[in-house]
Amino acid sequence: MTKHLERDLAHLKRELLSLGALVEEATNKAITALVNRRADVADEVRNGDDLIDSRELEIEEECLKLLALYQPMATDLRFIVAVMKVNNDLERMGDLAVNIADRAFDMAMAQPVVPPGDLLTMAERVRAMVRESLDALVNRDCELARKVVRDDEDVDDMHKRMFKFLEELMMKDASLVPLGVHTLSASRHLERIADLATNIAEDVVFMVEGEVIRHTR
Amino acid sequence: MTKHLERDLAHLKRELLSLGALVEEATNKAITALVNRRADVADEVRNGDDLIDSRELEIEEECLKLLALYQPMATDLRFIVAVMKVNNDLERMGDLAVNIADRAFDMAMAQPVVPPGDLLTMAERVRAMVRESLDALVNRDCELARKVVRDDEDVDDMHKRMFKFLEELMMKDASLVPLGVHTLSASRHLERIADLATNIAEDVVFMVEGEVIRHTR
Repeated sequence: MTKHLERDLAHLKRELLSLGALVEEATNKAITALVNRRADVADEVRNGDDLIDSRELEIEEECLKLLALYQPMATDLRFIVAVMKVNNDLERMGDLAVNIADRAFDMAMAQPVVPPGDLLTMAERVRAMVRESLDALVNRDCELARKVVRDDEDVDDMHKRMFKFLEELMMKDASLVPLGVHTLSASRHLERIADLATNIAEDVVFMVEGEVIRHTR
Repeated sequence: MTKHLERDLAHLKRELLSLGALVEEATNKAITALVNRRADVADEVRNGDDLIDSRELEIEEECLKLLALYQPMATDLRFIVAVMKVNNDLERMGDLAVNIADRAFDMAMAQPVVPPGDLLTMAERVRAMVRESLDALVNRDCELARKVVRDDEDVDDMHKRMFKFLEELMMKDASLVPLGVHTLSASRHLERIADLATNIAEDVVFMVEGEVIRHTR
């Protein structure tokens, strides 16, 4: 039975990583759509979300099956519970990528109101956090996971600066309000993707070391 | 052992409901702070979040313990997994209540930019959804759970109307941008609390009937 469990856990891990790859791709495309004002790429993100949703359901089903079938203890149990949580977070990231794509779609025809470089810097940072949180998960790398948790503060700061900048811009020129509000939403969605990457990183630390680092920031 | 499991599951249920009551109270207070412009009540919400966070951790710990100790099957397993998910959603609702309280704090000294009645109507609807999702959970009431899922569409519509209204307001009078943006955030946080209540309702249906109603809306 242990051998079967081992095999099934390896399969579960691959499934989760494949979902992670889909979500990472959706995030990257949403960022491309936003920064390069590509409505066609935004559409790809919106059309891809059904697959992410159905994969999430399959993985959850798989976790429940493994729990019932093997009644695993200690490390294996903690791993399966972590997979369920990460799975949930990945699905929410997918939704946020769609939200960003929606904003990108609305803004594709207009002149950008923030220097594209600023949005890109933030987006690149978030993209790296998504990538690193998944790498930390695969490699059970707590050092990398803790880096992701630290990086989240930078993204929070970037979002706050973006907020301030857009607020002032809209006060100066009211005709920029609609675009300003869309850009603000996009920035907030990016910031929330970073939060979810941080959740994943925290779950990695919990899974590997058994230490809860949530709520201690 | 079955008797012990039964006793421990009943205890877990009580713990979850007590967390639910804390979160419901935080949500109600955040709404009061927002609508009645009460900075003191906003402060109570901010100060109460540590308790919610620590309760969430305790409940998760308890779930892991029960899974390892009893290796439960079928219904009990599905119940424990549902508790873990609802627990997570409740903690996120608590965070959103704090976000609303932060906005309420910033806006307490200013004249409201939206008719307080509009915000109140939306807030009352969200408050009812939180209440009903928890009632549905306690009573394993799928009919009520499905009502919560349906109500979420109304809240989404209310948020969209609020968005439109505030956007136009800010375009007409740029001096209202800061307050408009805060109000928009508060409305979005309310809408997300409703989303999480919907998640809980969906988990109730899954727990009781084994049917997945997520992603089918």
